[in-house]
Amino acid sequence: MSLLIPNLPILPFLATANQNEEASSSLILAGVLLSLVLIYFASKLGGELCLRINLPPVLGELTGGVLIGVSAFKLLLFPESGADASDSLLMQFLINTSPLSQQAAQSVFDAQSEVISVLSELGVIILLFEIGLESDLKELIRVGPQAAVVAVVGVVTPFLLGVVGLITIFHVDTIPAVFAGAALTATSIGITAKVLSEIKQIGSNEGQIIIGAAVLDDILGIVVLAVVASLAKTGEIQISNVIYLIFSAGAFVIGSIVLGRFLSPFYVSLVNRMKTRGQLLLVSLSIAFIFAYIAQIIQLEAILGSFAAGLILAETEKRKELEEQVIPIADIFVPIFFVCVGAKTDLGVLNPLIPSNREGLIIAAFLIVVAIIGKVVTGFTLFGQPGLNKLAIGVGMIPRGEVGLVFAAVGAASGALDPATDAAIIVMVILTTFIAPPWLRIVFKEPAIAEVIPKTSD
Amino acid sequence: MSLLIPNLPILPFLATANQNEEASSSLILAGVLLSLVLIYFASKLGGELCLRINLPPVLGELTGGVLIGVSAFKLLLFPESGADASDSLLMQFLINTSPLSQQAAQSVFDAQSEVISVLSELGVIILLFEIGLESDLKELIRVGPQAAVVAVVGVVTPFLLGVVGLITIFHVDTIPAVFAGAALTATSIGITAKVLSEIKQIGSNEGQIIIGAAVLDDILGIVVLAVVASLAKTGEIQISNVIYLIFSAGAFVIGSIVLGRFLSPFYVSLVNRMKTRGQLLLVSLSIAFIFAYIAQIIQLEAILGSFAAGLILAETEKRKELEEQVIPIADIFVPIFFVCVGAKTDLGVLNPLIPSNREGLIIAAFLIVVAIIGKVVTGFTLFGQPGLNKLAIGVGMIPRGEVGLVFAAVGAASGALDPATDAAIIVMVILTTFIAPPWLRIVFKEPAIAEVIPKTSD
Repeated sequence: MSLLIPNLPILPFLATANQNEEASSSLILAGVLLSLVLIYFASKLGGELCLRINLPPVLGELTGGVLIGVSAFKLLLFPESGADASDSLLMQFLINTSPLSQQAAQSVFDAQSEVISVLSELGVIILLFEIGLESDLKELIRVGPQAAVVAVVGVVTPFLLGVVGLITIFHVDTIPAVFAGAALTATSIGITAKVLSEIKQIGSNEGQIIIGAAVLDDILGIVVLAVVASLAKTGEIQISNVIYLIFSAGAFVIGSIVLGRFLSPFYVSLVNRMKTRGQLLLVSLSIAFIFAYIAQIIQLEAILGSFAAGLILAETEKRKELEEQVIPIADIFVPIFFVCVGAKTDLGVLNPLIPSNREGLIIAAFLIVVAIIGKVVTGFTLFGQPGLNKLAIGVGMIPRGEVGLVFAAVGAASGALDPATDAAIIVMVILTTFIAPPWLRIVFKEPAIAEVIPKTSD
Repeated sequence: MSLLIPNLPILPFLATANQNEEASSSLILAGVLLSLVLIYFASKLGGELCLRINLPPVLGELTGGVLIGVSAFKLLLFPESGADASDSLLMQFLINTSPLSQQAAQSVFDAQSEVISVLSELGVIILLFEIGLESDLKELIRVGPQAAVVAVVGVVTPFLLGVVGLITIFHVDTIPAVFAGAALTATSIGITAKVLSEIKQIGSNEGQIIIGAAVLDDILGIVVLAVVASLAKTGEIQISNVIYLIFSAGAFVIGSIVLGRFLSPFYVSLVNRMKTRGQLLLVSLSIAFIFAYIAQIIQLEAILGSFAAGLILAETEKRKELEEQVIPIADIFVPIFFVCVGAKTDLGVLNPLIPSNREGLIIAAFLIVVAIIGKVVTGFTLFGQPGLNKLAIGVGMIPRGEVGLVFAAVGAASGALDPATDAAIIVMVILTTFIAPPWLRIVFKEPAIAEVIPKTSD
């Protein structure tokens, strides 16, 4: 057709029957490449800046995500938020630099968002695998009772305080109050574990209690969500489902430890007998992915599976070698998760200039106080254990992260939450997620000294 | 609703307005996890078996892919082949083990196939980045003239032999003959580079000539494809587009080398000043992805971009450290590419019991002979260079791989190719791809000795 030099060529040599398919497939790849570059840029910019002002890098990754996400520059958007291709500056950039048409942009946008979402989920799966590898199963079992106390207290306290307060002070209806109370029970294991890893406290007594409690809290959170959601939907609690979840969670945890003990020798001898490149990494990641898959399909969370796999493989002689090889993998996958969490966070609900936000902000202020008190007290319920940094344990349980947002999303979608309470939950989640990392660093300064003293006096 | 213990629970607590979205998003992740485990299993099973019978592991990865793909167990299928969710055994497994319904399966299948396809494309991008890091820009420029001779001879010879033979011996029409001839010109840089890397010959004189020629061949292949496709569509050649492609390829190659030289000091000082985890890897991968993006949108191929980025970064003092960190990344991404290439290969066209295949098989036999001769001669056109393993260079150019399949796909889609010629091209691509790796190993036995002798006589 055009015999002039094409300024924006439309892949003319692929202008065949499957033109759209071929063209959009190569443009989805282009969109993914662009998104990854953007995510890495945001994560390193935020991480490096935070490190320099003595804040945890992961806070910088979250903030970097907020900057490029729906709240600020709208470069990285996701269809779940109601955004389409024309809202995304990244897609507009792609349209302007590539042969992509405005019409085809929507399907490319959807597909590349899907890919980035899966990569982000793989990111948190790999993070928890790494945390599992850095943890110590024996130590975790030893601190089990303490972790259980912290987890249960950390679920019951904020739930009761939240529900009673909302009903009596704010005259919120029972069902939305229960939803908000349930959202207060969550703990984001990802945020806390990453900070603990950054300050090298995962192996400490407090670190293992926090990790153990956060894992138990994740399981409790799934049960609580099931209860609350069925309450909102049918007005009654589906006992069968609650029993199923408790049973499957218990079976999964015990089953994976027993299975792990039994299969570890086979794993080591298999890896030792293999000779091709990457054998240790691929066998180990396959185990992590199988566990994550099982946890996912029995309605637990994929991250519980990869954490269990990490714990089990950490018991084998391959631990050190595997840990080293997982580092670069985590380096490229984990930032995708944190930046995406930030990018999906809509800070619009925080703007007090918008009148409709104000009611939510007042409720939010109350929820934040309850969220902090409800978790900080958990550490202090561990009586008679001198030398334990009880405040650090409580602070470690504060961030609600993505888990809290799931409650808000399910609540809003079921119609049980009015916009004000929904916004209040989101504000509470954002604030607790962003204050916990720097606070955790501050409170961990103390035990580092406290730990040295007993050792020298031994 | 159900107060009995649910045997296959359908995520009841997410049974809200966005139920389908939430549920399918978690099931897409489950599908991706399952696919990755399967891909890793197939790649290691094939790779380990091949290594033990002294064949290149990459051949095992391809064969492992064939086993789980459309030709055999139909576990890993892709919608491009016309398959849908009900054909895929992996999807059936997912339906039977998870709350996924047959109705929702199709969208999960499409989404997870898309994710795996993108991961596979990232795999070959990372492979070429690694090959670039292992290559030597100065050496590549030094062997440039030889590589150019090999590339041009390797395009012209099989094209002319193929077209003339098809027209005179088989009385094929001009346009399908030209298409088949064009498919003969391709070289799969991925297959050859991986084998060279496995036998540690990338740094050798022959290795660098092959890599250089394969890269040039990739560029020539894009130009040839543009010419042939426009010929098939309009009956005439779009000069403008050919000029555009030649110009943009030249500008890209020269531009990236110049830009790389100029920006290298900034890269090193940036990485040195950064303090957060994974800084070297993320900055370097971002550069690779930006180059891949640019190559992709100017209608070259993404792999040319990542190869150029690898070449440039290999010139900096970070080379060794970066190479080490890229290894685990390549270990988890690259097998996805080779297994997917195998899984997408339909060996059905090879079955001589199906009468309609026979005409294609006869043409295929001719094409295979031409494909081998046309590339093997290339090495012998390098006159007066004793000590150079000329046969190895020719054999290194034989595999057509995915590049050859693109010709067949574009040809079939445009209607220019009849089924017999189309099948013949596919058979030729499969055979050349599968025989080259073991053959390359055999012919490289010699220079290893030849190389030692000059060194001791020096």
